[in-house]
Amino acid sequence: MNRRIGKRTLLFRSEPRILSASAVVAKNEGDGAFSGRFDLVLDDDKFGEDSFEKAECKMFETAALLACQKACIAPGDVRAMLAGDLLNQLITANYAARDLGIPYLGLYGACSTMAESLLLGGMLVDGGYCSPVLCCASSHFSTAERQYRYPLEMGTTAPPTAQRTVTGSGALLLSAQDVPSPVFSHIVLTAATIGRVVDLGITDMNNMGAAMAPACCDTILAHLEDTGYSEDEFDLIVSGDLGVFGSEMLIELAKKKDLHLDGRYLDCGASIFLPEQNFSCGGSGAGCSAVVLAGELLGRIERNDVRRVLFLATGALMSPTSGMQGESIPGIAHAVVLERRD
Amino acid sequence: MNRRIGKRTLLFRSEPRILSASAVVAKNEGDGAFSGRFDLVLDDDKFGEDSFEKAECKMFETAALLACQKACIAPGDVRAMLAGDLLNQLITANYAARDLGIPYLGLYGACSTMAESLLLGGMLVDGGYCSPVLCCASSHFSTAERQYRYPLEMGTTAPPTAQRTVTGSGALLLSAQDVPSPVFSHIVLTAATIGRVVDLGITDMNNMGAAMAPACCDTILAHLEDTGYSEDEFDLIVSGDLGVFGSEMLIELAKKKDLHLDGRYLDCGASIFLPEQNFSCGGSGAGCSAVVLAGELLGRIERNDVRRVLFLATGALMSPTSGMQGESIPGIAHAVVLERRD
Repeated sequence: MNRRIGKRTLLFRSEPRILSASAVVAKNEGDGAFSGRFDLVLDDDKFGEDSFEKAECKMFETAALLACQKACIAPGDVRAMLAGDLLNQLITANYAARDLGIPYLGLYGACSTMAESLLLGGMLVDGGYCSPVLCCASSHFSTAERQYRYPLEMGTTAPPTAQRTVTGSGALLLSAQDVPSPVFSHIVLTAATIGRVVDLGITDMNNMGAAMAPACCDTILAHLEDTGYSEDEFDLIVSGDLGVFGSEMLIELAKKKDLHLDGRYLDCGASIFLPEQNFSCGGSGAGCSAVVLAGELLGRIERNDVRRVLFLATGALMSPTSGMQGESIPGIAHAVVLERRD
Repeated sequence: MNRRIGKRTLLFRSEPRILSASAVVAKNEGDGAFSGRFDLVLDDDKFGEDSFEKAECKMFETAALLACQKACIAPGDVRAMLAGDLLNQLITANYAARDLGIPYLGLYGACSTMAESLLLGGMLVDGGYCSPVLCCASSHFSTAERQYRYPLEMGTTAPPTAQRTVTGSGALLLSAQDVPSPVFSHIVLTAATIGRVVDLGITDMNNMGAAMAPACCDTILAHLEDTGYSEDEFDLIVSGDLGVFGSEMLIELAKKKDLHLDGRYLDCGASIFLPEQNFSCGGSGAGCSAVVLAGELLGRIERNDVRRVLFLATGALMSPTSGMQGESIPGIAHAVVLERRD
């Protein structure tokens, strides 16, 4: 059976269900625009551990276990975990996978990881290969900052285009249609579009929204072209972490292609913090779109506030090494379609 | 349709075909045990570029393009590339994906990447989601050495348990049954087993074979248990890069579980170099199993030397940061079954 439509879009004809989701965040995120929507808000972003890396791993594990617990599924019955984070060699996801003991497929899509894991996880379930599967993504301000930028102790100030890496882990449990869940009863995954790497030559590591916006626009256009849908058939089009400037850029780029996002568009990065928190252009990181999806967006679908959502997570695929060697920042965006079924 | 058997094994009932494969390596690998089997052997491991990282990226792209060219398929007609490498944030695969323009899913499985990409690529094709797809993995001695160990200029000597990272990129083109190929006409992918992270507490970064052997044993046992096959129904059981010590350890671990590998077992890492090349315990790296599979093993299946091969690629999932924080080295191994069809 052909399950591809157009050039880059996959159809999940069996409509895998989202059984449950969970989000663990730190205080800044818990005090932000989606206050009260997360499963656990940490007072201490070291989570009682002796390093930020171990704290992120514990956050990830907690989110994964909570998602299982909410759906009344034992971790040992989860058939695969598809996950990633921002740390070199994915140590957050790797060590969490060791402790959880779930068969594991490591993904690196930078901040596009949540959508990449849903795309591949959806296929595992829809194709009849595995069910249930866990899809997870994570980031932590303090682990990312010292790996990608400067030692925290330096106290460097951020330029106005910078975004703050979200400290948060999100986990979603996906399953074949036949499993009942006490959490979500109406949310299904119906399609996905694979991202292409797009690079317009941006080299400013403090302006990653601008580097990712063209890739995001490319994937939205590919999805609409492949499926024949128009943008107004979606109640919400969500991008991962373009931030304030990147979102504006996406809206402008889209307008030039006769695609009108206004009124149905949300960027997780631009929305997660409140303006008075003064985090420049908003949040970023693989955990940003993961916790907004798990904590806020799925609830809106379940409650019938929105019925069809195009969820894109956006990633900047450079490394400090490629940056120092003068390379520009390549962007990617993967998309999945989440729909409400009555 | 249920395509899972047992706990961790996926069946590819439509039997996706390997249309072509290519391997690009450096001089040491070209002079090794599989001399004459690779598509391109570089004289200069900088490949005319001004950094080793750019050289690795060019190697990767060359391998990907060669695989397409050999199968007479334009890169623009490839529906997805599933790939990874050892560098932080996967810059080899990311920048190659940008230049190739193929929809891209980044994977991080350390040296297990080749099997992870075949597992997921097989599902994309078998499930009817995409075809053809490229599965690629890469590593480079000089990029890995300076990232994971010491600056090359220090000229540190390797301890006796160390393995040398293979400089090589391998690419396989996978497709649905209906595409003819001038290269391979007989090789199909019939099943895959997802790895679990296994960690017996090894902390010596110069003895990664020992850290990975238990995971490899675990996946072989899971595959046999899930499918009901016994080891003697395989003509060859291949591990990725356990090296000389790690392979011995795997054989011993397996024996304790009443699993007898002798006579049908090959480790890509222990085999790729000749003893007189003096590379301690052999080769390692994501490129090691990729180029041995692409350059040597597929040819043996096509020529009917072997008819059923269990191919495992093995990964050590630590990072320099986790090592410095006192963590042990978690291992993983994914498996795929390659078979000859007359």
